[in-house]
Amino acid sequence: MRQSRVLCFFVLKFHCMLEIHLLGTGGTVPLPGRWLTSLLLRWEGKELLVDCGEGTQIALHSLSLSCRHIDTILLTHYHADHTLGLPGLLLSMAKADRTEPVTIVGPAGLKDFLQGVMAMARYVPFEIRYIELNEREVSFNIDDLQVSAFFLRHSVPCYGYCFNLERKPKFDVEAAKKNQVPLKYWSALQKGETIEADGVTYTPDLVMGQARKGLKVVYATDTRINPLLRQYSQKADLLITEGMYGDPEKKEKAQDNRHMMMQEAANLAKDNEVKELWLTHYSPSMKDPYIYTEEIQKIFPHTILAHDGQFTDLAFDHEEESPCLK
Amino acid sequence: MRQSRVLCFFVLKFHCMLEIHLLGTGGTVPLPGRWLTSLLLRWEGKELLVDCGEGTQIALHSLSLSCRHIDTILLTHYHADHTLGLPGLLLSMAKADRTEPVTIVGPAGLKDFLQGVMAMARYVPFEIRYIELNEREVSFNIDDLQVSAFFLRHSVPCYGYCFNLERKPKFDVEAAKKNQVPLKYWSALQKGETIEADGVTYTPDLVMGQARKGLKVVYATDTRINPLLRQYSQKADLLITEGMYGDPEKKEKAQDNRHMMMQEAANLAKDNEVKELWLTHYSPSMKDPYIYTEEIQKIFPHTILAHDGQFTDLAFDHEEESPCLK
Repeated sequence: MRQSRVLCFFVLKFHCMLEIHLLGTGGTVPLPGRWLTSLLLRWEGKELLVDCGEGTQIALHSLSLSCRHIDTILLTHYHADHTLGLPGLLLSMAKADRTEPVTIVGPAGLKDFLQGVMAMARYVPFEIRYIELNEREVSFNIDDLQVSAFFLRHSVPCYGYCFNLERKPKFDVEAAKKNQVPLKYWSALQKGETIEADGVTYTPDLVMGQARKGLKVVYATDTRINPLLRQYSQKADLLITEGMYGDPEKKEKAQDNRHMMMQEAANLAKDNEVKELWLTHYSPSMKDPYIYTEEIQKIFPHTILAHDGQFTDLAFDHEEESPCLK
Repeated sequence: MRQSRVLCFFVLKFHCMLEIHLLGTGGTVPLPGRWLTSLLLRWEGKELLVDCGEGTQIALHSLSLSCRHIDTILLTHYHADHTLGLPGLLLSMAKADRTEPVTIVGPAGLKDFLQGVMAMARYVPFEIRYIELNEREVSFNIDDLQVSAFFLRHSVPCYGYCFNLERKPKFDVEAAKKNQVPLKYWSALQKGETIEADGVTYTPDLVMGQARKGLKVVYATDTRINPLLRQYSQKADLLITEGMYGDPEKKEKAQDNRHMMMQEAANLAKDNEVKELWLTHYSPSMKDPYIYTEEIQKIFPHTILAHDGQFTDLAFDHEEESPCLK
């Protein structure tokens, strides 16, 4: 019995490396049946949220997802459809007995914006930490997840976010033997420790193999296509971006308001060898965005015109895992 | 053809004196399928809203109601479930091309609260006027609607609102003849004008009959029962109040947090000869508030445990209308 439970845990851990929940697909205003665009990422027991328009907490609830464990909230920009759900979300986290700090990241002006949030929320019983983005590119780590914020081209300062889930190299038994590393140090070295013993320094690279491809997810809305977006989209496992309009007659409007057409997003994905593209942030003027599916998939076949609650769990490429050293 | 259209307008005007739209029935947090408690009143081409929790603009939309013509927004208090939808609503009013001012009324602290709203909304292209309530009772008129704000008993300063739609007296032909008012002045006097002619002062009371009963609607949540609530509830055509809990075991919690039990609301309605009671602001802990319907209707039979979108249009008591003077 115990064995099967251990196996089950192993399988789950292996297959569910990075959960992606697109909570809503709306842009501009929340609509009945279409929540505003917002993304929940879960990996290795950690959670972060990108954007939080009005109703995001209800979208989470409707997908049976808790807000309790969201440690980090990334804001792309301060337009209302990306932010107005924040006071309600923080209060619901408090109602769910959260006491740990929450870190909020956003463009310049975050401090003033958060003062407005707190004036509306009145009281939140946990610490709010904040990181204001002032450079065109900023990278930081949340455990094994590397987050890069990069500047987009919208009508106000706006950032896209690139998530890289790093994959540790495999333990290399042959290298360990070749490098004459005593067996008793293998486990510590695999965990990243350095060992000084018998006048010799043993470093992890003596027992670990080549770097391995991790997982890359990019979230970019609202924006026109700029060089940084092209650069970060390169070979992404998943690119989530706006398909504000599908009707070619709206192209001028998209350009004027610094939004992206579905066709432009599909070409971006094709040109940058993206594995899969999700479109979201549909204009409320599009009653049925899905009528454009066939046309867009002709440009880039691996496009999904996302629905509210669109979900995937990305796993590392399958290969034999490291032996379990104890 | 023209005649039938005139008749149609007359019938509509007579039957739809005061429209009541209860947009949501939730308390504390918005839930999938249960919007937060908020009320839209419409009368004679005017509209006002009471409370505006997160998602209120979506609730309006889902009932095919526009936010464009809401001139006045009354806030009961500043708990998040009554206020967080305000920035989004104001922005959606702007998107609907509203340019006329909006007046917001609320307890002391309104100015600071509105600074938070504006910090989140960023820019609203119409004037926001505000009236801060600092007395225990305040009355004002919006055209023919008399609004009285009265202090409730909640954990923070909180007001109930009593709406009286006045009904003009009927034109009294017999009185006009008896008072020897020349026929040519009847129409002007009926409209409320005073006429000076031939050394005589003709006042409206010379041609108008007795005062007539108008319509009275009371909205009171969140609160325990206090003397002002009893007083304003007296003989209301409709009392809308909270039924936070139905389970008697929650009575202590209701008392501690200054909320009302369904049973207490029903007794309030019975004791004060209310015509009809609507319960709303259900605790999210009640998955199905309607299981208490039978029990509550035993206390006060004219109770409706409201659903989202509960609607009625109250009309003046039927009696022969004044002759149409032209």
